[in-house]
Formats: sequence, C-alpha cells, structure tokens
Amino acid sequence: MTTFVGVAAMAATFLMPLPKDMTVGTGFVPITVSFAATVSGPGAQDARVQKAIPRLVARMARQTGIPIHPMNVPAVMEIVVAEAGHEGVQKLGDNERYSLTVADNHIKLEADTPLGVLRGMETLLQLVQQTPGAPGFGVPNVVIHDEPRFPWRGLSFDVSRHFMPVEVVKRELDGLAAVKMNVLHWHLSDDEGFRVESKKYPKLQELGSDGMYYTQDQVREVLAYAADRGIRVIPEFDMPGHSSSFLAAYPELGSGPGPFHVVHDHEEEPSLVMDPTKETTYEFIDGFIGEMAELFPDEYFHVGGDEVSPKKWIGTPHIKEYMDAHHMAKAADLQAYFSKRVLDIVTKHGKRMVGWDEILNKDLPKTAVIQSWRGQASLWSAAKDGYQGILSANYYLDLSYSAEHHYAVDPMKQPGKVFDLTPEQAKLILGGEGTMWEELCSPEMVDARLWPRLAVMAERFWSPESTTDVASMYERLDATSKWLEWLGLNHRTNPRLMLQRLAGPYPVEPLDTVASLVEPTKGYSRHAQKYGIFSTLNRLEFAIPSESDTAREFRNGVDAYLADKKTGEELQRHLATWEQAAKDVKPMMTNQSVLTQELPVAEGVRVLSEVGQQALSFLRGTAKPPAGWKKEAEAKIAPYVDQRFGDLLIQIAPGVKKLVAAVPAS
Amino acid sequence: MTTFVGVAAMAATFLMPLPKDMTVGTGFVPITVSFAATVSGPGAQDARVQKAIPRLVARMARQTGIPIHPMNVPAVMEIVVAEAGHEGVQKLGDNERYSLTVADNHIKLEADTPLGVLRGMETLLQLVQQTPGAPGFGVPNVVIHDEPRFPWRGLSFDVSRHFMPVEVVKRELDGLAAVKMNVLHWHLSDDEGFRVESKKYPKLQELGSDGMYYTQDQVREVLAYAADRGIRVIPEFDMPGHSSSFLAAYPELGSGPGPFHVVHDHEEEPSLVMDPTKETTYEFIDGFIGEMAELFPDEYFHVGGDEVSPKKWIGTPHIKEYMDAHHMAKAADLQAYFSKRVLDIVTKHGKRMVGWDEILNKDLPKTAVIQSWRGQASLWSAAKDGYQGILSANYYLDLSYSAEHHYAVDPMKQPGKVFDLTPEQAKLILGGEGTMWEELCSPEMVDARLWPRLAVMAERFWSPESTTDVASMYERLDATSKWLEWLGLNHRTNPRLMLQRLAGPYPVEPLDTVASLVEPTKGYSRHAQKYGIFSTLNRLEFAIPSESDTAREFRNGVDAYLADKKTGEELQRHLATWEQAAKDVKPMMTNQSVLTQELPVAEGVRVLSEVGQQALSFLRGTAKPPAGWKKEAEAKIAPYVDQRFGDLLIQIAPGVKKLVAAVPAS
Repeated sequence: MTTFVGVAAMAATFLMPLPKDMTVGTGFVPITVSFAATVSGPGAQDARVQKAIPRLVARMARQTGIPIHPMNVPAVMEIVVAEAGHEGVQKLGDNERYSLTVADNHIKLEADTPLGVLRGMETLLQLVQQTPGAPGFGVPNVVIHDEPRFPWRGLSFDVSRHFMPVEVVKRELDGLAAVKMNVLHWHLSDDEGFRVESKKYPKLQELGSDGMYYTQDQVREVLAYAADRGIRVIPEFDMPGHSSSFLAAYPELGSGPGPFHVVHDHEEEPSLVMDPTKETTYEFIDGFIGEMAELFPDEYFHVGGDEVSPKKWIGTPHIKEYMDAHHMAKAADLQAYFSKRVLDIVTKHGKRMVGWDEILNKDLPKTAVIQSWRGQASLWSAAKDGYQGILSANYYLDLSYSAEHHYAVDPMKQPGKVFDLTPEQAKLILGGEGTMWEELCSPEMVDARLWPRLAVMAERFWSPESTTDVASMYERLDATSKWLEWLGLNHRTNPRLMLQRLAGPYPVEPLDTVASLVEPTKGYSRHAQKYGIFSTLNRLEFAIPSESDTAREFRNGVDAYLADKKTGEELQRHLATWEQAAKDVKPMMTNQSVLTQELPVAEGVRVLSEVGQQALSFLRGTAKPPAGWKKEAEAKIAPYVDQRFGDLLIQIAPGVKKLVAAVPAS
Repeated sequence: MTTFVGVAAMAATFLMPLPKDMTVGTGFVPITVSFAATVSGPGAQDARVQKAIPRLVARMARQTGIPIHPMNVPAVMEIVVAEAGHEGVQKLGDNERYSLTVADNHIKLEADTPLGVLRGMETLLQLVQQTPGAPGFGVPNVVIHDEPRFPWRGLSFDVSRHFMPVEVVKRELDGLAAVKMNVLHWHLSDDEGFRVESKKYPKLQELGSDGMYYTQDQVREVLAYAADRGIRVIPEFDMPGHSSSFLAAYPELGSGPGPFHVVHDHEEEPSLVMDPTKETTYEFIDGFIGEMAELFPDEYFHVGGDEVSPKKWIGTPHIKEYMDAHHMAKAADLQAYFSKRVLDIVTKHGKRMVGWDEILNKDLPKTAVIQSWRGQASLWSAAKDGYQGILSANYYLDLSYSAEHHYAVDPMKQPGKVFDLTPEQAKLILGGEGTMWEELCSPEMVDARLWPRLAVMAERFWSPESTTDVASMYERLDATSKWLEWLGLNHRTNPRLMLQRLAGPYPVEPLDTVASLVEPTKGYSRHAQKYGIFSTLNRLEFAIPSESDTAREFRNGVDAYLADKKTGEELQRHLATWEQAAKDVKPMMTNQSVLTQELPVAEGVRVLSEVGQQALSFLRGTAKPPAGWKKEAEAKIAPYVDQRFGDLLIQIAPGVKKLVAAVPAS
C-alpha cells in the first residue's frame, strides 16, 4: 500500500516504477560535495555493490551538477547488505527486496542481497530534487519498503533487422536497470542477419551478418555490463523459421534447395526454414547450441520457434515423405517433433528452453518456457498445463501504440476473460517483456522507440497490481523520461537532431511544433512500405516519438474544457501557435526535398488549428457562428480526421472534431 | 577571390571557414547508399588518408540518415594525393592545400599531401544538403581551390583549472579538425593541478592532481587521435609561476618555505613561483622536460612564463641576495635569466620553446616563439626583433564575448595601429589560438563555451584576410553550429539538459525562452565569485551560451525596424512571447531553489517585454502614448539596462531602450 503525506505528491511524481510501500515525511537530506556511502554486512564485498557505489556517486553528481569528491567527513549514506548473495550467475527469482530510509540527515539503504541494493539505488536517484529554501539538491525524507511483483521483467531486443552496436546495447542496459528491469532478451538471429561470432561455425558471421555482428569478446563485455547492473541476458537464436541467416551460411540446413541468402529487402522472400528431417540438422544445432550455451551463462536459452511457414515443409517432397512415414498430419506436428529434439539438446547443455507460443504442443516437456506473443489466454493455458510463461503480447514497442495502451495490459488479467488458475499455476507466470522489433528502426532512433514507454511496462511488472492510475502514470513518465537522459539515453535529444537534419538551413522551430502534433501510424500499417536493413529511414515518421504528448494533452484539454468551460483561452492560444507553425513550416517543406511529401500534414495542421480556433470562439461566446458554419467546418476537417498521410497521423484532429461537434448547428 | 553563381548563396551558407576560391555551378551529385571513395597517387597509402575514408563515409551516413554500405558499383568519389608527405611527425607549415571539384556526378578531391585531403573532406561534408526536387541528399556542383592563410591555427586548452577527461579532449579534436584547425595547445599544469603522469617524478600526479590526470598511455591515445586528424599537439607546462602543483609535489623547487599545496579555492593564495636561483631547480626541469619532450613528439614545447609575481622573489632574502650579486635590478631580469636557462634545456631536448609575452627580453635567443596574450603590438614588436609569434589576445573564449568581437581581431592588423613589418618579418607571425581557461567551466559546459565561437577564429586563421562580413559570418556560424553536432559535440544539447535540471518537475519551455535572452557577464567580472575546482557550477549562468542569438537578432531587428518600419508586428509577437514566458517562469523560479536568485531576471524580461510592446504599438500607430509615458517607461526599464543580475545580463534591454527612445515625448 502506498501512503502519501506532506510533500508526498511531489516525491511521488518522480518515481517509476512506484514502490510497494512508501511513506514520505517532511524535510530533506541535502546532497553536498561530500556525499559518500559506506557499505557493511555480509554482502558488502560483492563486486556488483562495490562497482555500483562509484556509479551512484557519479550519477548523483551529474543529476545535481555538484562535483562530489572524497572528503574527510562521515558518509551521509549507509548501505547494509544482509546476505552475501549466491556465487556465480544471477538466477530467476533472486531476491530484489530493499528498504530505503531517508531521515535525520541520513540515508539508509538496506537489502537482503546485492541485487536489492542496485534496485534501491535507482529509487534513491529518482528522488533527488531541489531542496526548498536554501539553493541546492537533496532527497526528501521517506521510508520505502519495496520488492517486485514479478521475477522476470525484461526487454526483448531485436538486433537482427537492424544491428545495434555495443554502445547502444549498453545504453539500453543502463535504461533497463534504471527502471528496475532484470532481463535483456537478445534476439540475435533472424532472416536479416546473424549477429554473434561463432568460432565453431564461422560462416554464420562471415556469410550471415553483412559484417555486422558482436565478437565473443564484445558479447562477454555486454554480459559483464548487464551482470553489474543486475540484469540477466537470455540469448535467442530463432529456429526453425526466421533462419535465413543460418541457411545463407550453411545451406545444407535448409528445407529445399538453395541458394539461400540473408534477407536485405523485406519483400524479396518469405521466411526460410530449417529441415527438421535430417539428423545432420540436429548435429549442427547440438554443436551450435553447445558453443552458445557456454558463451551465455544464464540458465534460460531462447530458440524462437515462431512463424514457421508450413508450405516450406509440405511443399518439399522428401519432407512430406518423412511426415507421412512418421504419421505427422500437419506441419505443426513436424514442428512439435523439431521442438522436442531441440529441447533435448538445450537440456543436454544445461539450459532451460524458452520459445514463442508456437512451440507449445501436448508432447512438449514441462521444462520449456512459453513466451506469449498471442495474448494472456495462451499464457494461462500453458500455465494450466504446467509451463512457465512470460507475456509479450501487447507490449510491442515497435507498433507505435501509446504508453496508456501498454499500461493497461496485465499478465494476470484481461477484460472479459476469466483467470481461473490455482495459486500454484499462477506462480508459473513469471512476468513479461517489452518487445522491440527493428524492421523500421535504425540505431539513431532506437532510444526514442524504447523510451520512455518501456518504463510503463517496467512499472507493470514491478509495482503492485493496483498501480493503474493513468494520469499519475503520465505525470511520472514525463519525469522519468527527463531523468533517463542523465544516463546518456538520447530518446529526447536525437529526434531533435533528426528534425534539424530535415530542416537543413531553415530554423527548426516550426517543424518541431508541427512534428509534436503527429504520430506514426499504428500496428503493422507502416510495414506496407518497402523496407530492409539498408533502407533509408530519415523521413519525418522516423524522427518523431511514437506518442505525441502535446496531442494527448490537447485531447485531455478539450475534454476538460467541454466539461467545465474553463481553459478555452489556453486551448485557443495553443491552436494559434500551431496554425502559425503550420504556415511557417511550408516554405521549408517545399524546399527541403526529404520533407516535401509532408506538405499535406502541414496543411492539415493549419486547417485543423484554424477551425479549432473558430469553434472555440463560438463556444466561448467571443464570436457567433455564421449560418452553415458547422457543416462547412465538418467538411473542412474531414480529410484530416482518422486519415493517414504516408505513415503519419495528425493527432490533434480528434480534439478539433469534438470542439466542432460541440458548437450548436446554426 | 570567392565567386558565387546559381545556388551559390545556399552552398556558401554552409561553409566555415570560407575557402580561398570557390565557384558554384548548378546541379548536385547525389549521395546514395552506394557512396564510396577511391584513392590514388603517391600519398594514397598514408595512414591518415586510409583512416579518414571510413570516417568520411560514417559521417556522410550520419548527416544524411542514409545507411551507406559497400556495393559493387563504381565509386562516386575520387581522391588523388600527389605526394606521400614526409615521414613521422606533422610539422609547422606542412602543405594543407586541396582542390575539390564536384561535377558530372563525380566528386574529385585533389591534394598535394595527406593533410590537404583531410581539410578537403571537411569542406565536402559541410556542403552536404538536401537536393532540390527528388527527395535525397547531395553535394552541389562546385569547384574549390583552397589553402590556409596561417600555418598555426589552434586552441589553447586549459585542463588544469578543471580537468577535462580524454573523451572531452577527443571531442574537441573532432571539432578542431572540422573547422580546419591544426594545433591543440594543451595547458597541462597550473596552480590548480598537474595533469600528466610522470614516471620520473611521480609525485607530480600523486600530490599535484587530486587524482585527475592523464596516464602516459592516455596521452599517446590523444596524440594519435590528433595526428590522424592533422592536428599537432603542443604541451604546456607553466613555469616559473602558475606552478603550485609542481611545488605541492616537490616543495624544494619553491621560492621560500612551504608547505605548498594545489590551489583548490581561487581566493586562498596567489600564484606560487619556482626558485630560479638554485641549480637543483634546473636539474629538475632538465629531467622533467627530458621526459615530456620524449612523450610529446611535436617540435614546439610551451613553458608558460606568464604572470610571475615579483613579490615572491624580491620578498625572499636569498633570492634578493642572488639578484643583487648578479646585478639584476628587477624581477623581470631574474625571469629573463630563468627563461634563458629553460630555453637551453628545451633546445637540448630537441625542441623549440614557446612562451607567453613575458618571456620576451633582449637576451632571449631568436629560436623562442612568443604567444601574445597582450595584443598585436607585442606580437609585431617581437617579429621585428626576429621572433616567431602567435596571437591569443582577444581570442579568450572564457570571457563570454561575442563571435563578432573575436571575428574582428586579426593577427596582422589592428585599428589605429600601424603594421610596419617587412614581408620577411610578417612571415614570423604564424597565426593564432583561441584560448579557453577553465576556472568557471566544468566538463559538462566546455563544449558550449568553445563552440560555435571557436569556428570564427578558425575562419580568421584560414580564410583570406578580406573575409570579414559579419552578417555572413553569423549565418554560416549558425549552420556550422548545427553541423558540428553530428560529430557528437554537445554544445547545443547539453545546455538544454542543464536547463532541464534547473526546471526540475516544471515544463522547461519558459525557462528556455527566458534563458535565451540573457548572457553571462563579460570579461573577468564573473571571477568576483568564489570559485575553484570543486565549486558547484550548476546555476543559470553556467547553463547558457556565452552569446544570445535571440538577443542579437532582436537588436538587429530593432535597428532594421527603426530604419524601415517594416517588421514591427513580428517584433511585437516576439516580445509578447517573452512576456508570457517571463510570467510562466516565475512559479518555477520561486520553487526551484537553485533558480530562485534569478527572479529579478524574470521580472526584468517581463518589464522590458511589456514596455517594448507598448513602444512598438505607439511607433506603429496602433495606439497613442498617454501623457508622460516615455519618461515613465525610461524609468521602468532603467534598472535592467546595462545592469548585472548576479553574473547575468538581460540582453534584450538595449533594443527595448532604443524602441522607447524612438517614441516621441508626449
């Protein structure tokens, strides 16, 4: 239960995920140049804790601008780690509980384990703010007892469709740790590229990566970076489908004759599949997984298993013969067989197998873990059958849905569905993963596609089930988004640079304003464009966040105004600014060739802003609508409401439509 | 001579420094995913050229958003290097000439040497822009013949008063190369800290650096990075003054008894000096310079020599005795003796000595190089006496003067002074250095203090003497400032983060707006505050550029309006926006304690904007001034014109004052 008193509201606006239990007092502990932390207890010497302390100090310095340095004074912060934590690799379910007590000019962070210390430090850093009265920064007096709701809280991160260099992966790991996530599910192979050096099968990177892959040293560097931050790394090598990059390197693995090659252009061919009828396929998989199982220390190992094209098997004579001979009626039966064989291999190498929904079948051993991209129902059904599972459905960050959309999704409930699992079955639902596929995302935009929306999933997986207030979420998400920039994430700064690139020699401000009112289209609608790893992604749709804060605030502002008629003047001022920007942006759009196709968007913003201002002046009674105005206005805005312009939506259209609708017909 | 035709005006707005000779045609060479460059000629295998090509491609990709990658098509760009260039270390005066011909879908870069190739590549990258018509990027057809005016074009960079980590130094080297500068003068020791590992005298870093120094490996890393970019690195170790960090480590070098320590707090004590009367001092200097002369390969070696306090010598009995015994009447005579001894040591180790003005004296050998911080006159006088010299006077970036101020300074001329050097003497004037002292600058603000203003000095040192048009300079500086961000310089993005830190939970926009109208106070006025290496520099004055573009544009706008009465409405709109922002920012300033002291600035902006709007409405005739308005208005704005608020100036005040003055008294 969360209790707020005193300056609680202020302190609470900074936290995401919200802690399980929090009491805020009055007063602050100031952060000064002499800030320092001591650590004691059986876990004090844990390397993660020892490395985390200087990171904490450096981040505190960056967030405050105070040049904190060692001084000969008593430390203001005390860390106590009750247990040493087990040796070796972090495990699913490792204790992450912590307590944070800020009072009497003292900060005390207590945790059972080193992991708990890491989580508590992030909470502490989120609480830093300017102290009232004397100029400076501090941490409000507060008592927090916190622990996560789910043990598996992660990001599924595709680096095949667009390769993400090591520094990007590290940056995202910083972000994950900052919102207390603990899993990076690293999607390392797909049709578009194989991304890890194999010493045993070097053709994988030589022929399957276009030269874009992580060396094993780089993998180890990432793993160490993640481990230091309390994040497990689960590798995924997708098979038997999504495997063109395997087949480009080793065509003998393929169903049917080659030549195979890495997919550069999405349209060029459907997903290729491995041949599950040949023993040599399993020999390869055994050797390959053996090598990778050693490289990646986590207990879990993901083998994909999604979207296997039945045609590729049934259409191949020797495979069809094999199926007939083994009484397999459907391709799914053959996949079940393949999954079982792969599971045996994964198990032999000391790992638990994770796969997407499709691997599920009645013969699958219960050690398998199901990652559901189809919905809660398949997760619950798997749990009933005794399988562990994690939810990814409706957590797809690449589809440009709003934070609110994702926030509403809960692994344990779904409107209109009955959750009838026993407590024991419920425990098999481990948590979830935000999921980011990179077909339409290059490294320069990836931070902005992940953040800040991933933070609301972090909250869903960490905070109590009752944490569902959308207004509070957006307020805290805004604070979190700003705060995440101190880690070096560029989700706010890089889109500005990209808009600048579009504006060229023109002042960027009108483009900034118009861009803040539009969003990319949702779902898979953007996939209609031709795309591939070497497509140029520099147009406006790639330089804007997936969700427009300004448009959402306008929508809420219109609802509020129509309810209480109070803030009409402010709305009108915004609409006037947008109209001006829409006019100012046109010469730029006309002359900057990469922007020219967006001229209809500028015109739409202009028309909507103009009509919106008229509607408001009528609603506010500062003017009277001429006869027939409403009908005309509806016709004028119709081309911009729920219409796509290329892959863009003008998201102030619904609000303007409501304003027009509210004007009485004359 | 620079000739512009066709789209010339557009192309020219991107270039800084302006080339010596340029002809712009019509049409573009498009940049596509298959962009590639071949290189031929005797210098083709030079490592600098070989490493520069992939950097060029990566930067082209970043500037365009096009995923350039190797394809099996003919290269669009051809590089020809006529000479191999000499072996080993880059030398003063090495040929930097290049020609760039963009025509007929082909880019040809020709240079005598690898250095010329590097310079030409920067010009090419600055020319990249969106192509008219078809969406995409390209380079305009152009013929450029270019070479520098001066051979020594650098930045004097203090890393003692605030230590600048290696990644900062590398970033600035990228910036220097981008504007064709070729010297990093690295001020590595001062009272506040000694910043290089000495293996021979390890106490220097152990006792003189607060743990903030470059290891020799890091120095070599920086040197290699600079050499790859055609930049010479001149180390400076300041002596006999500004040497507290030497004395903290080796007190026996000091004039008078210790204990000595590194200066943490500017007020605590004046600059300490070495004892020039003891042979052991020279033995130490010999050993030390011997080690450093090996570490730093450049032919030139800077030994400081500035601001030696005579009192420290004359007030010490054994030094006074020594001076009397050797017939030295003044401390300057003793410094002359010291300089001569040090020059002999520097020469013995194979280097040419550089020092600040003060080293100059009648007995100084002509091999010494004079860096003038006092003005052109001392430079010319030194040249007359046969000394090489470089100008730093009036190029001090830390003093917050405008780009225009620095742009007006020329090593070879000065208003009211007669330059009466022979051509041979004139050649001794090698160029100049922008100079950045870091007393009031931490690493998070250093990019914004250096850039973009340093680019105008780069132009002064590279472009023809006649390149002096201020309006053109500001237009190109704006483009250059944006373009420099593609290199990772954070001069535009980091101040935004720092403003965000000040704004805390409040929307940052009104603070952005108000901050865009103010500047730090000029010259040494800011040094009245208590400061030191561990001072907290997080207030508003540290989060704003040294020059306000908005205020300058407003000033120019007012002048234009008063001349032609055309743009009054636009000016009024700006003033209205500023008035609103000044109102909106007050709650934030009241509650955010680090901002609270700036409330008078917000009030000043509010009053000035209000009065400015009134004045404009009277001037435009949309309203009539009430009796006595002018007198009242003058009284109202007086507290904000030419007044400092802490260390801030409200820079729209002069423009508003002019508007009020233009209203007829009533």
